[in-house]
Amino acid sequence: MSKRIEDYLEERKILMDKALEELMPEPSGLASDVITAMNYTLFAGGKRIRPVLCIAGAEAVGGSADGVLPVACALELIHSYSLIHDDLPALDNDDFRRGKPTNHKVFGEAVALLAGDGLLTLAFNLMARHGLEKKVERKALLRVIDLISSAAGYTGMVGGQVADITYEGKDPDPTVVEYIHTHKTGALIAASVTAGTVLAGGNEEEIQSINTYGQHTGLAFQIADDVLNVEGNRDVMGKEIGGDKVRGKITYPSIFGIAESKHIQTAIVDRALEALDRFDERAEPLRDLARYIINRKL
Amino acid sequence: MSKRIEDYLEERKILMDKALEELMPEPSGLASDVITAMNYTLFAGGKRIRPVLCIAGAEAVGGSADGVLPVACALELIHSYSLIHDDLPALDNDDFRRGKPTNHKVFGEAVALLAGDGLLTLAFNLMARHGLEKKVERKALLRVIDLISSAAGYTGMVGGQVADITYEGKDPDPTVVEYIHTHKTGALIAASVTAGTVLAGGNEEEIQSINTYGQHTGLAFQIADDVLNVEGNRDVMGKEIGGDKVRGKITYPSIFGIAESKHIQTAIVDRALEALDRFDERAEPLRDLARYIINRKL
Repeated sequence: MSKRIEDYLEERKILMDKALEELMPEPSGLASDVITAMNYTLFAGGKRIRPVLCIAGAEAVGGSADGVLPVACALELIHSYSLIHDDLPALDNDDFRRGKPTNHKVFGEAVALLAGDGLLTLAFNLMARHGLEKKVERKALLRVIDLISSAAGYTGMVGGQVADITYEGKDPDPTVVEYIHTHKTGALIAASVTAGTVLAGGNEEEIQSINTYGQHTGLAFQIADDVLNVEGNRDVMGKEIGGDKVRGKITYPSIFGIAESKHIQTAIVDRALEALDRFDERAEPLRDLARYIINRKL
Repeated sequence: MSKRIEDYLEERKILMDKALEELMPEPSGLASDVITAMNYTLFAGGKRIRPVLCIAGAEAVGGSADGVLPVACALELIHSYSLIHDDLPALDNDDFRRGKPTNHKVFGEAVALLAGDGLLTLAFNLMARHGLEKKVERKALLRVIDLISSAAGYTGMVGGQVADITYEGKDPDPTVVEYIHTHKTGALIAASVTAGTVLAGGNEEEIQSINTYGQHTGLAFQIADDVLNVEGNRDVMGKEIGGDKVRGKITYPSIFGIAESKHIQTAIVDRALEALDRFDERAEPLRDLARYIINRKL
């Protein structure tokens, strides 16, 4: 299984990197600094998990990568924007990510802030242009923009980030940590895979099942992140380990301990897999991805 | 004329305030802080110029406020987000706006940053939901999302802000100041009025003329802002006067002086009015608005 999913991920990562390179502008003109900064984080070695989930969500109902590429790219832009803003001194104040200096360490806070804004805005531009240019069902595309913007905004990722800050250093509480993880990370991951299924013309039942899969997979992904932050390898991760604890972040390990956190993530992945019960072998990459997510090293 | 346009602005401002109040959520849940912060700037006394231009752009080709309200609201959300981020210490570091403490002075930098992100994201959510719920032409709506995201992103507002920072304190240059103003302010103003015309079913020729009107009006608006920053009334403006000069911002007065800047803005408004030559009396509010913009006191 491990080899199969690693090949799958690698193939689609190459596809995504190519698509992103084609769509991102070369730095030029009076605003060239912000384009350079946008490209810096977008091409800083991300695993392209969200785009790959979007493609796999399409494939599970008979769609293909081609039909969802602009939306898959948009998802990676939104993810990159969130990393840039999250790393800013006003939020997590991180100096390194994936072994490289964070955006504001290279370009300064002002340009980093605006590079995040630029990536978020460009994500919606890409999706709208996809709807105008390609033979895509426009209602499905608007539904996807609705879905992704809900998952990225105050009802999703932004809400999770605010809760994350608000409760930093406070008593760990299982309700709070679940809220933070399902919103900060889980929502966009669920929207990524669901967007693929919607665009590929999945029926309502399929869309709901894939969304359930995505919710569970997203939560498991963030718990795995928490665990890696405790027992990960600094050289593999490209950043210091143990940062969550130093900051007083509310995490699964801080509430349940490492062993129980691993049990929880396994149980959640089982529920993700159950949601795929009615799908055939075309959903095999999604099954592999859910298992991969809790066994990864970075 | 003055009374007529003031009544027009006031009526539509009331309509917009009501629409915005209806759509914005009450603060609740674990992310309630960010909702409070989003509402704070959104309801801090804005003149709703961009939404009013959107409505007037629709009316000019026989449309109505009703058909464009969600997009008009989205434009105000994008404007509010840009104010919050612009005021942050990393950018202009402003403590007051419209006589009130800026967002980060009240909620802290982290929540203010995320409130901006939340408003920008919600703007696209509103537009997508409008396309799903209402009997709007979906292709027109996607064109509007394309238009607005281009005007807000690195090809528009974000690009203008970056150039604004990059050239702060440098030799004033007419090419640079025109770039900054047309991008930082002009682009979203032009997109606002054009979006109204597109949604109301204007033909290509009408859309192009309204866009030309918007480009000129947007530039004139920002030059008027520069002039007010030199000779405005502190009590009316709700902030200190002369801030541009202290910061070494490149402005029209810094390059051309006050008298010549006023000549330029009048000439630009004339060009905006020319672009409306073929329109009938339904474009009268747009004509009034262009004249109002250079005669306003705040």
